Amino acid sequence: MRRWNGWGDDTIEVPVGEGALRFLTQQLGPGTGPADASFEAVCAQLVPSRLPPHPLVDTSPAVRLTHALGQSLQDWLRLRYGRIEAAPDGVAFPESADEVRELIRFAIDHGAAVVPYGGGTSVCGHLDAARDRPTLSIDMSRMRALTNLDRESLLATFGAGVAGPDLEAQLRAHGYTLGHFPQSFEYSTLGGWVVTRSSGQQSLRYGRIEQLFAGGRMETPQGQLEIPNFPASAAGPDLRELVLGSEGRMGILTEATVRISPVPAFEAFHAVFLPDWERAERAVRSIVQARLGLSMLRLSNAVETATMLTLAVHGKTAAQQVALLETLLRLRGAGADKCMLLVGASGAGDNRGQARAALASALTIARRHGGVHAGRGLGERWKKNRFRNVYLRNAAWAHGYAIDTVETALDWPRVTPGMRAVEQAAREAMAAEGEQVHAYTHLSHLYAQGASVYTTFIWRLAGNFDADLARWRRLKNAVSDAIVAGGGTISHQHGVGLDHAPWLRAEKGALGMQALGALFRAFDPEGCMNPGKLLTP
Amino acid sequence: MRRWNGWGDDTIEVPVGEGALRFLTQQLGPGTGPADASFEAVCAQLVPSRLPPHPLVDTSPAVRLTHALGQSLQDWLRLRYGRIEAAPDGVAFPESADEVRELIRFAIDHGAAVVPYGGGTSVCGHLDAARDRPTLSIDMSRMRALTNLDRESLLATFGAGVAGPDLEAQLRAHGYTLGHFPQSFEYSTLGGWVVTRSSGQQSLRYGRIEQLFAGGRMETPQGQLEIPNFPASAAGPDLRELVLGSEGRMGILTEATVRISPVPAFEAFHAVFLPDWERAERAVRSIVQARLGLSMLRLSNAVETATMLTLAVHGKTAAQQVALLETLLRLRGAGADKCMLLVGASGAGDNRGQARAALASALTIARRHGGVHAGRGLGERWKKNRFRNVYLRNAAWAHGYAIDTVETALDWPRVTPGMRAVEQAAREAMAAEGEQVHAYTHLSHLYAQGASVYTTFIWRLAGNFDADLARWRRLKNAVSDAIVAGGGTISHQHGVGLDHAPWLRAEKGALGMQALGALFRAFDPEGCMNPGKLLTP
Repeated sequence: MRRWNGWGDDTIEVPVGEGALRFLTQQLGPGTGPADASFEAVCAQLVPSRLPPHPLVDTSPAVRLTHALGQSLQDWLRLRYGRIEAAPDGVAFPESADEVRELIRFAIDHGAAVVPYGGGTSVCGHLDAARDRPTLSIDMSRMRALTNLDRESLLATFGAGVAGPDLEAQLRAHGYTLGHFPQSFEYSTLGGWVVTRSSGQQSLRYGRIEQLFAGGRMETPQGQLEIPNFPASAAGPDLRELVLGSEGRMGILTEATVRISPVPAFEAFHAVFLPDWERAERAVRSIVQARLGLSMLRLSNAVETATMLTLAVHGKTAAQQVALLETLLRLRGAGADKCMLLVGASGAGDNRGQARAALASALTIARRHGGVHAGRGLGERWKKNRFRNVYLRNAAWAHGYAIDTVETALDWPRVTPGMRAVEQAAREAMAAEGEQVHAYTHLSHLYAQGASVYTTFIWRLAGNFDADLARWRRLKNAVSDAIVAGGGTISHQHGVGLDHAPWLRAEKGALGMQALGALFRAFDPEGCMNPGKLLTP
Repeated sequence: MRRWNGWGDDTIEVPVGEGALRFLTQQLGPGTGPADASFEAVCAQLVPSRLPPHPLVDTSPAVRLTHALGQSLQDWLRLRYGRIEAAPDGVAFPESADEVRELIRFAIDHGAAVVPYGGGTSVCGHLDAARDRPTLSIDMSRMRALTNLDRESLLATFGAGVAGPDLEAQLRAHGYTLGHFPQSFEYSTLGGWVVTRSSGQQSLRYGRIEQLFAGGRMETPQGQLEIPNFPASAAGPDLRELVLGSEGRMGILTEATVRISPVPAFEAFHAVFLPDWERAERAVRSIVQARLGLSMLRLSNAVETATMLTLAVHGKTAAQQVALLETLLRLRGAGADKCMLLVGASGAGDNRGQARAALASALTIARRHGGVHAGRGLGERWKKNRFRNVYLRNAAWAHGYAIDTVETALDWPRVTPGMRAVEQAAREAMAAEGEQVHAYTHLSHLYAQGASVYTTFIWRLAGNFDADLARWRRLKNAVSDAIVAGGGTISHQHGVGLDHAPWLRAEKGALGMQALGALFRAFDPEGCMNPGKLLTP
């Protein structure tokens, strides 16, 4: 069963290895896992629902609680310590666009806010209930069917509530894949990906969700918006682009048509170690600007590389394997400052050869920058664990450590300064708390123009809600300020929600914010759709 | 000097060959070139300017006339027959964003409409002056400088009024190219490409302008909109996408940053002949869906193929060459129904090898569908003449024939029915006039999802304005109805303007139109920016 106050299925445990625990204790001091509030106790805290009865709306505390929050660290603190300030007054599970329309109408008629709910994996406060009025959460999980498959145009139409694994399973039965694999893949939904402008790990081949989303239907307070589905169009601004990133402020996406691909017949992930960050950055820039047709590039900085090699160690054999690898790498010039680059290539049908050639070219370019090819082992290991690493957050919490991440995207000249500034801001924010932070970064998505910079922070929990919330707030504010000051976007792949909203104006400008507000009001004049998210009132 | 009532520079003549003229006479009946109105006579028709004097505004009839219209067939009829119903009351040539701002303010203060003017190449009525108030045309041609070049991020910033050849020359001096080559390249501007969502002939490699446009600045009646420039972002709807396709309704783009590429070291265009349309369509679909990394695919249907081989013939030697080619093709299975496919590949630096491999793979796939490779000659000839073919329109007019085109994009299952329906609609529309139309089509831009369908029509001029306008209107209405009925967008690469506006609602829907209207009003509450274009009032 899905954990109500942590990540993922409760039968899956990814433990913190002994070496990793020793490492964290040394870096951050010994941790103590706080006592969690019980599900029953938290349910009992919820105020009674303020919504009148409706046959499609469930007002039981258990369902309201499991729809109250997402996966941001703030959400975790609230759930773990049992400090839920607001929960939806009811949750509906519509099975058709007609029901979605009816539910939006019901909410408006009763002065309630609507919060669309996909997989509940938001990490920036998309799911918070309104504070000033009742809230209806609309859970889209029952609208998950593949309703059309156009093999000629490589298009598939789904109910927008379909989650990653279900979507892939339905496509793979016909020989296709969407190829969209964000780390939240296990639970996040197609509709959620679209309205938060998600990006998957293999976006280098398949594209961001902006490229994959071809059209669909949205229910809005002003009626149904049909988003046409053309290969391309010059007929005015693209309605798809109004919906992408709209974060529930316009309406609820009920159906989405996506651009699919044949399941790859060839797929490989290789690891290359570069001697230091400067050479690594130049190598990946050269590779991505060569437009080889790879499916993934993922570059860890030296601290992340060392952390991954430490965290990967469970038991003596593994420790010996890592030690041997590090010795071999050192002999070939990749020592303490080494940075791990993962290179992926995927090919189907007539482009298998091209995928193999792309991989070979990438390795050649990496070698030119001092890269040492370490084969497929680490790459395949990454692929196997790519949706499991996020479970480490549960185990770290139990040992008294918090893990959080931020991400941005920057043009190339700003990538390294931006990365350093974000890590440094986090360290200073924690030092002000008298605590250490272990911060490390990878470039998760590579573009000819620049890269996304994805930084992870591990620090010690104080053990009580107020102190831990203050610690997190200080860190979050410091790194968000650093991102904006460094010329980055406040989010490359997670969205805005409540948590990033204060920094949005810096990139959209007053006029841009005003225009987005006018756009949303055209669909939602009464302001009932996910109020307060994205644009602060 | 640029022609005031036709295409291009008046020192360039591309004659209709003898064979082509014989062909047109046989197909459409003998034509007589109408007598053109003189520039002076048309200038004399213009009503005096209603704008008060302003140091930046030129109100001379000659300048007003040369900014009155674009290149649609309707515009041609008005210019050739001297039937200008409305011209701007003045034309300004700003040299800075401050001047653009001042001019917009001046227009609003005097109740005038603003029509942004780039290269004057619109083919759907973007440039018409307002009928109900004075009009100020703002010609952006003096804002054309390369102001920033970021070699690391492959970004270049230009004044938005820069025209194609000037932009390419400025980039090539540094070893770069934008790679955006619409047929209007000779005159059309960067700003015009952005606000009409233009697509170049090599968009398969370089992307549509939507992918090339990274950010910029727009002057609007509500102030300056700064469009940030990130490699990618999930921070709400993308401001770039509000500007793309806005057709002057929000403001005037003054500066644009674009994603550039190294000048290709390898570039080749090959011709392949497929035996018939069905096999040709399957071949290009297979090629484009294999994502090989080509730079161009362009498939002519059988009538266009025959027309091109006829039009290419000037003199006896050429006729013999074409006859020989056709004999050879016939022997190898490509006879009367043959369709010509042009395949382009371009590579720079580390991807030269990949470009060569992509070309080889494309030819292999084409062969599998019965394709006969005809080498580089025809492809290189196409490349050489790609901006000259449009001059044929001048020569055809002189012989009494009109040439017009329409274009759309459709998903694959709709491509062939859509193409047939558009050609048939044109034939029926002309038959109702007691005239023939010579209609032929190519797929100009290929996508995994579908293709753009670009149809050319040639018919005989009646020789007087009213009859010719009626003929054109009937044809334009018929083919636009056919596009919408066939599930296509009203434009894949030309935009909406006045001419396509009546068909826009079919794809945007009432709610979509309302939302776009609200968006434009947020920037232009008084409705002075290019009124009536894109969204009919």
